[in-house]
Amino acid sequence: MSLLEEVRARIQPLDADAMDMARARQDRLIKPQGALGRLEQLAIQIAGIRSQARPNLQRPVVVIMAADHGIASHGVSAYPIEVSAQMVINHLRGGAGISVLARHVGAQLIVVDMGVASDLPPHPALLDHKIARGTADFSRAPAMSREQARQAVETGIVIASDLAAAGVDVLAPGDKGIGNTTASSAIVAAITGRPVAEVTGRGTGIDDAALARKIALIEGALSLHRPDPTDGLDVLAKLGGFEIGGLAGLMIGAVERRVPVLVDGFISGAAALLVCTLAPAAQPYLIAAHRSVERGHQAVFAWLKQEPLLDLGMRLGEGTGAALGISLCQAACKILNEMATFEEAGVSDRLA
Amino acid sequence: MSLLEEVRARIQPLDADAMDMARARQDRLIKPQGALGRLEQLAIQIAGIRSQARPNLQRPVVVIMAADHGIASHGVSAYPIEVSAQMVINHLRGGAGISVLARHVGAQLIVVDMGVASDLPPHPALLDHKIARGTADFSRAPAMSREQARQAVETGIVIASDLAAAGVDVLAPGDKGIGNTTASSAIVAAITGRPVAEVTGRGTGIDDAALARKIALIEGALSLHRPDPTDGLDVLAKLGGFEIGGLAGLMIGAVERRVPVLVDGFISGAAALLVCTLAPAAQPYLIAAHRSVERGHQAVFAWLKQEPLLDLGMRLGEGTGAALGISLCQAACKILNEMATFEEAGVSDRLA
Repeated sequence: MSLLEEVRARIQPLDADAMDMARARQDRLIKPQGALGRLEQLAIQIAGIRSQARPNLQRPVVVIMAADHGIASHGVSAYPIEVSAQMVINHLRGGAGISVLARHVGAQLIVVDMGVASDLPPHPALLDHKIARGTADFSRAPAMSREQARQAVETGIVIASDLAAAGVDVLAPGDKGIGNTTASSAIVAAITGRPVAEVTGRGTGIDDAALARKIALIEGALSLHRPDPTDGLDVLAKLGGFEIGGLAGLMIGAVERRVPVLVDGFISGAAALLVCTLAPAAQPYLIAAHRSVERGHQAVFAWLKQEPLLDLGMRLGEGTGAALGISLCQAACKILNEMATFEEAGVSDRLA
Repeated sequence: MSLLEEVRARIQPLDADAMDMARARQDRLIKPQGALGRLEQLAIQIAGIRSQARPNLQRPVVVIMAADHGIASHGVSAYPIEVSAQMVINHLRGGAGISVLARHVGAQLIVVDMGVASDLPPHPALLDHKIARGTADFSRAPAMSREQARQAVETGIVIASDLAAAGVDVLAPGDKGIGNTTASSAIVAAITGRPVAEVTGRGTGIDDAALARKIALIEGALSLHRPDPTDGLDVLAKLGGFEIGGLAGLMIGAVERRVPVLVDGFISGAAALLVCTLAPAAQPYLIAAHRSVERGHQAVFAWLKQEPLLDLGMRLGEGTGAALGISLCQAACKILNEMATFEEAGVSDRLA
């Protein structure tokens, strides 16, 4: 049995007892029942994930999975392919959007080279797990082999497990890879069965002609490869990318270790769909952090039957929405932990 | 000329030059233009408020305005009137929802007794500006005199000015007062002209009979007092309460001192409507923090032509939504300040 199958078999349901205890405490805190809305539900979900009646999230980490895409040679992005590597360097230097937001929420930032097309200079926060120098062009051939797809997912699992073992208690995965909204739209169309045009958007900001090309490329690839929507490794192998497989692995590994994991934007949403085919028991653990304006994200939420925490018109990826979600998860846990109950506070309860 | 008129006359428009500089920098940061959505717009607005091209918010304060309402004797709340004073004590002890969230975002918390019905024990973080022991029952008489209404607003102005002078650079006002959704619904109906039933909800969680009573009381009071919707002091005097006037004053005082001010939920929304009649030039400064589930909040947003930052199904008041908004304002400013530009980062710009 491979690591993926082993980990999948170890995923337990959310801890119902911990959730009941959290819910009971929530209802005795000095506020009208339910008055903190999503923050209350979130704390109860995290209690179930952590298997703790009063969880407390103190060691957040952002992990950025980076890789390149063969499909990018068709001009489906507003930016040239070398930007993936340039941006990885800026994630590490501290000048990228996610660098700023990770600092803002007090999260450590790690970047993983899952398959960037060029060599990257060594850095203490950069993990080298390069599977290949970018995927193959999926409009002509599978993006990667099935073995590489498994390797991508299992790399993510191992990283999440190692972080959990080191005491990390909340994880915000993010992505970097020029061309990866194209792969993500292909994955979302393959798994949800929705029309390609409905789940394909402008990514970093392409014009109408590039958007039409992007849609046609995805439609052609789906006809060519006929990925099995119930087999996440098949979908991943045929459409890519290495970082999307890595994101799915991070989520599965975090879930198995009972670490709350924030699902970022559209790329991470595509990875979450892979998670739900590779390890369906993981689904109730996932926390949707934000709604991207990228067309197609709505189809992800409909399929996952989830609503995100934030809706700020963002579409940057990198884990920027997930990072903001860390702060809300911590706030939710603090409410549960630190608010007084009616009894403790000497506050009169509701009128009969 | 009274303090209110003096301060109103000193309010300047948002600084267009600072906003232009912030916008220009925003568009050179290493991300697709606009990819951080509301965070980008927020940073530009704050640049205009602070009159700084690269603002940086480092001293947040939450100010809770507390008072009682004569109308509460009609059973329009799910909680007895003594809960206002009990909750003030818990705000100060650190066990209330806003106590927890203020700590979470690193904000100092101050409570102001604007007119709580009972005596409150002294505390270093409690300011005594008690105007009276609760308002009069507005279903029979004006809630307060016009002079008291002015005193409530001017108290808030002075507190905000003092905080600004002490270096506070972002303000999150909150409310406490059993019965204050009733006063707020009355204010919102009076100023927006919307039907009372459309802007009146269940507050802390009243049943159908209490809701019908609440609506009838407000309708009766509007017929009795006929408040002038263009005169905020008239509306405030006739409907109350002291803390709502204080909230309006905090907002006006913060605006005049160019301190960003987060508008919390429904009670603060009613105060924001008063602000827009008392000092219309303040309106572009206001930052709507969150959407309350309290019925009637939507009418406030429609009137203010604003959309809130957060929509988390909350309805606790106390400044809890505003406190969460502080973190987003800080994040927005850090993005503007700390992200690298394409030039600085050596990242290739968009394809032509």
